[in-house]
Amino acid sequence: MKAPLMLAAALLAAPALAAEPVKPAPSPGEIVAGALAGEWITIAPDDLLVMELAPDAKGRARRVVIQLISPPFSQPWVANIRTLARSHWWDGLAIVRAQDNYVVQWGDPDGEDAAKAKPLPPLVPTHESHYTVPAPAGLGKNGQSRFVNFSGYTDAFDDVFAGWPVATDQEEAAWPVHCYGSVGVGRGMSPDAGTGAELYTVIGHAPRHLDRNIAVVGRVIEGIEHLSTLPRGTEALGFYRTPEERTAIASIRLGGEVPGLPVYQHLSTDSASFARYADARANRRDPFFIMPAGGADVCNIPVPVRRLPTPEK
Amino acid sequence: MKAPLMLAAALLAAPALAAEPVKPAPSPGEIVAGALAGEWITIAPDDLLVMELAPDAKGRARRVVIQLISPPFSQPWVANIRTLARSHWWDGLAIVRAQDNYVVQWGDPDGEDAAKAKPLPPLVPTHESHYTVPAPAGLGKNGQSRFVNFSGYTDAFDDVFAGWPVATDQEEAAWPVHCYGSVGVGRGMSPDAGTGAELYTVIGHAPRHLDRNIAVVGRVIEGIEHLSTLPRGTEALGFYRTPEERTAIASIRLGGEVPGLPVYQHLSTDSASFARYADARANRRDPFFIMPAGGADVCNIPVPVRRLPTPEK
Repeated sequence: MKAPLMLAAALLAAPALAAEPVKPAPSPGEIVAGALAGEWITIAPDDLLVMELAPDAKGRARRVVIQLISPPFSQPWVANIRTLARSHWWDGLAIVRAQDNYVVQWGDPDGEDAAKAKPLPPLVPTHESHYTVPAPAGLGKNGQSRFVNFSGYTDAFDDVFAGWPVATDQEEAAWPVHCYGSVGVGRGMSPDAGTGAELYTVIGHAPRHLDRNIAVVGRVIEGIEHLSTLPRGTEALGFYRTPEERTAIASIRLGGEVPGLPVYQHLSTDSASFARYADARANRRDPFFIMPAGGADVCNIPVPVRRLPTPEK
Repeated sequence: MKAPLMLAAALLAAPALAAEPVKPAPSPGEIVAGALAGEWITIAPDDLLVMELAPDAKGRARRVVIQLISPPFSQPWVANIRTLARSHWWDGLAIVRAQDNYVVQWGDPDGEDAAKAKPLPPLVPTHESHYTVPAPAGLGKNGQSRFVNFSGYTDAFDDVFAGWPVATDQEEAAWPVHCYGSVGVGRGMSPDAGTGAELYTVIGHAPRHLDRNIAVVGRVIEGIEHLSTLPRGTEALGFYRTPEERTAIASIRLGGEVPGLPVYQHLSTDSASFARYADARANRRDPFFIMPAGGADVCNIPVPVRRLPTPEK
């Protein structure tokens, strides 16, 4: 007699259950919107690089905001980039390259012509040994923030977060990875490691083969559409064929030199909200989705950035 | 006495070895350029979808060529797309959406307004159960073409190649994956699986969370820059705010209806050259690189496509 009774109880309970509204699972964006104020980290103005391109064909301003990468990663190049910005070195130079599904690159169009190249301010030496650093404590195989295993061949390293997407090598070394929007340092053939004067942004699928071969120095946090929509160059590697095709750089400044710059914050990758957000990116359960992926790679979990909603007093 | 003799022999041999020029490792592009004629597969004209956008601001033509996905994948939608192309259904419709690092989408701007929507020709039914198919023989855990393991959480499936990048589930199911340039079918909320009338192309990092949630029906093989450089829409999800911001579609045709269309071929993913190319993409050893990655994901190993160098006789 038990089974029918339970069935009856279930039938009696059903209307009450049905009356409870079924709450859909939150989307990644909804989780980020609900993050606590203390989970956001304010980005210091001098960790921002503000690039003003020449206005577009309709006269509209084109501003690209880049966050410079945090220690311990790529610091010799970051130091040079601050020196170049403070000396207004990029002003009047240009976007020289746009290669589809790869990079947009800027710097001195005459940089490889010693007679015409724009003189550089004093810069610190860089070396390819600085592409990696000792892994910060807590990262690596035993870290909490393990995501996809990038390497199908060697199973030798993990991708994790340390404010930035980072790959780690059995807790011995760590390096920032190339994702959409990452900013890196153009260079010549090894042992040249680049100064930081020639920079590029990724505008396609993460070119992870560049990791540990080029310094990653930052990420675009606003305005990447001003780079990603530029006409592609038609020469090899997407370089523009004629000077007229290039886009002029009006100025590049550190954030501290830009009047009225908004305050930008990024979500702490150590926060509970980031963990929920990353899980939701890896397993979409919001209404549109019918089959959660069961995983995501670090480049599909972009670190959320916002403008501070109200001015800081 | 044997070891010193061998050493002496080695020393004697050294100058001759040094005189041999050190041949740099070939780049992925060089490997593809050296592929044998028999390793290329000609794409049938009716497996091509040729989209002509309205000319750009300077009057230049904008053609996008899409290869429709091969059986057994997504065939109900492919059948509908052929029907729609043959009835010239897309002519005069528009690009309605461009979301940075995500998708560009086209179709009927009035598609969701029953009173104004353009009537559709008779189409076959579609169902979300068709997002996956039984894995073709030879794919999956025991296949030869295993690349990166996409899922860091479940370790449940592998990414492989079957002419197309495909994910497999322990040899039971397979599904085409979303990479840069993939073409998919817009849809409403489940159980709507879309007809194929509303299409999009990926213009950013592979949105793998869409796999098994949306039908992948093809890939752009030429002219993606005409989509990836379009101005981004400013409404939610990158939809254009005003009709004037949309780009008009002059026509979409199957390749067999396009006079003078070049012959396109893709490299067989079963070929020896493709295996060498994939390995080179995963482990760059050409001169610029100092540290091979040790792996690559399927979306970083785009299937090479070429125009047939000489006209077919």
